[in-house]
Amino acid sequence: MDRRLIVIGGQAAGLSAAARAKRVDPRLEVIVFEKSSRIAFAPCGLPYWLEGEVPGVDKLSRYTPEEFERERRVRVCTGVAVVAIQHSRRQVVLSTGERVGYDALVIATGARARKDLPGAEQPHVFTLQTLEGAEALSRFVKDRKPERATVIGAGYLGLELVEVLLRWGLKVRLFEATGGFLGRSEPGMVQWVREYLERLGVEVHLNEPVREIGARQVNGYPSDLVVLATGFQPNVALAEEAGVRLGRTGAIQVNEHMETNLPGVFAAGDCVEVRHIITGTPVYLPLGTTANKTGRVAGACAAGRRERFEGVAGTAIVRVGSLAIAATGVSNLEARAAGFDPVTVEIQARDKPDYMGSRPLYVSLTGARSSGRLLGGVIVGEFGVAGRINVLATALQARMTVDELYQVDLAYAPPFAPVWDPLLVAARELAKQL
Amino acid sequence: MDRRLIVIGGQAAGLSAAARAKRVDPRLEVIVFEKSSRIAFAPCGLPYWLEGEVPGVDKLSRYTPEEFERERRVRVCTGVAVVAIQHSRRQVVLSTGERVGYDALVIATGARARKDLPGAEQPHVFTLQTLEGAEALSRFVKDRKPERATVIGAGYLGLELVEVLLRWGLKVRLFEATGGFLGRSEPGMVQWVREYLERLGVEVHLNEPVREIGARQVNGYPSDLVVLATGFQPNVALAEEAGVRLGRTGAIQVNEHMETNLPGVFAAGDCVEVRHIITGTPVYLPLGTTANKTGRVAGACAAGRRERFEGVAGTAIVRVGSLAIAATGVSNLEARAAGFDPVTVEIQARDKPDYMGSRPLYVSLTGARSSGRLLGGVIVGEFGVAGRINVLATALQARMTVDELYQVDLAYAPPFAPVWDPLLVAARELAKQL
Repeated sequence: MDRRLIVIGGQAAGLSAAARAKRVDPRLEVIVFEKSSRIAFAPCGLPYWLEGEVPGVDKLSRYTPEEFERERRVRVCTGVAVVAIQHSRRQVVLSTGERVGYDALVIATGARARKDLPGAEQPHVFTLQTLEGAEALSRFVKDRKPERATVIGAGYLGLELVEVLLRWGLKVRLFEATGGFLGRSEPGMVQWVREYLERLGVEVHLNEPVREIGARQVNGYPSDLVVLATGFQPNVALAEEAGVRLGRTGAIQVNEHMETNLPGVFAAGDCVEVRHIITGTPVYLPLGTTANKTGRVAGACAAGRRERFEGVAGTAIVRVGSLAIAATGVSNLEARAAGFDPVTVEIQARDKPDYMGSRPLYVSLTGARSSGRLLGGVIVGEFGVAGRINVLATALQARMTVDELYQVDLAYAPPFAPVWDPLLVAARELAKQL
Repeated sequence: MDRRLIVIGGQAAGLSAAARAKRVDPRLEVIVFEKSSRIAFAPCGLPYWLEGEVPGVDKLSRYTPEEFERERRVRVCTGVAVVAIQHSRRQVVLSTGERVGYDALVIATGARARKDLPGAEQPHVFTLQTLEGAEALSRFVKDRKPERATVIGAGYLGLELVEVLLRWGLKVRLFEATGGFLGRSEPGMVQWVREYLERLGVEVHLNEPVREIGARQVNGYPSDLVVLATGFQPNVALAEEAGVRLGRTGAIQVNEHMETNLPGVFAAGDCVEVRHIITGTPVYLPLGTTANKTGRVAGACAAGRRERFEGVAGTAIVRVGSLAIAATGVSNLEARAAGFDPVTVEIQARDKPDYMGSRPLYVSLTGARSSGRLLGGVIVGEFGVAGRINVLATALQARMTVDELYQVDLAYAPPFAPVWDPLLVAARELAKQL
């Protein structure tokens, strides 16, 4: 009899695992259980759908269950939740009461937006992780015509939501518990992003945690609408009850093959913690790319092929207005906490030759004093930000020194970059100090 | 008495060398001799000036001689050519007849556009490396109102000129001796660029070398105007007469400290050959970035600090219309010639998630079969090309394997990239075949 793989969760990680497993071992029977009616949904697209940049919400689902079944030859059961994993019997219990046996299991139960502030359950408070949440926000704005909105959290989702609310014509106030944006607080970056947001009309409150959401105010400021964007919590109850070990971050602990502590049980996506390639320690950084990559590795390994996921550099990018803000690796503070002796430089350069109508570009780089190794970077600007943060992510993956980064033969032509790319200027400055 | 450094040439490499040397050793007397009246001129900006994208030609000179002298505290003598180097006496002979002694010398004599085709000296034939050449081209078009233009050479300069001529409303025909563009001939890339140029109205003739430029025709096709963009020749006569050794490429041979065979004599910029980081062999690839970098190293070393230039990856990028075409590393053919057992994959992916209005992106990667090492890549598309070629250039500098490239934590957000970046998709495809 053929082996059976059960995948819990029909979004990015689960479907990547299912498709990959079937590809690796075509004789494997693969069944995906997804509790909602929708699979392969891209929640990252929701802010752009709200802004009107995505024409229809159907575009955010890459496949219908039927399409996925046909193309990938796996079974997809939507509207069916797994309510228990009985690993000693190698079976799952479904919301229908049915029991289904497995030889291998992939847990891809995802995450949910944190809603742990007092007052978060009020009808004017929204999170933006599900289509339902986005639709509710959109409906509320149309029906109630709120004027003053509050966004709590200046991570990528909070910043994306600031943009959505601005486009809708609301007055926006942003609260962030830390002193920065995207989890970074390099002074030059913070100043630039803050001033940019202020020019857009946003009232920015850094270092101001919100302890409670009032009916008509937040931290004493009037507010008709609140968007909570303070992060995600992994959905681990099902796994934990089955004896799957969690890590210190509270997410499921896996090795580089996405194996949990239970033999034959893998986990992937927003419910797992992953290794940070700079610090070597597990981190919880749920993101679409990581979900897809870890899902793919989990699927391959569940089907018997030993692939591996090496970890994340913590690369993140967000667009607000015409500005792009990006970070990768660790900050000076995180580097110090991880045992490095870090040095950070900040520069402001131009993104093209002056004669081409250049715009400013901010680069911060952090390196380790003894080894000269590059540890992280932040880039802010209007042009070429994604490409440049990716250069740094590549250098981090390769464990390059700052001096090696300085030697890279980066592309040059007037429409794209100045002769001395801002990355090289920053690397040169940092190399002097290491 | 203080030491004296003489720099021959007041453009990118020469000025970089002069400024760097003075910075490293402030007691050094530095004198730059530049035969023209203009220093720090950016010839790479000329196509954009012709197109009208650069407001005034003055913008293309970064410094006046006076500004440079004041800011960098070196002497700049314009309108003065060095006519001989008498190294046994450690002196140069100037066009004024004067002799000036040196302790160290940097040769940065640059290059000139190749004009070695029969018929190239006719008044309707232009090259585009100097302001005078660009002005002559512009004047010719205004005065004579030619209708049919021919561009010879599909390197970056030829392609930039195609765009200029199209903007001016001319009918453009392009001849290229090889089967590709930018020195690359991966089939998918050639097809894409050819079809794009044809849509713009360009008549593309690949594999059609031009042996002679006629008075009214090129290769039998009528032509009122010809732009010759078949490459550059290093200006080495002065160096060669002084006993400076040339390499096999015909350019000046230097080590990683930009030293020539003569003690105390350095060379940098478009007159030198440099090491290719993939093949390890010397290549002649004159480019603004390399000129600045090698100049800087030559200046530091001439002033007594042992810096080094590790070489080039051959990274190049050009914009034609809304298309960007970029390459780095070596092609399959070049890899084979260098002793690798290369495999090349080509993919066509999307530059963003489909729901964001994605456009196609072409990626070709070449890797080595035994080691798995990445050897080169080509990228064509409308968005995110520069950043992605720079990721590959970084991976080449780090000697990454294709599998390591696949593990890079690239930035993801819907406005910038799809969840599976095209680079990762290509790396995955290539890794399977290595």
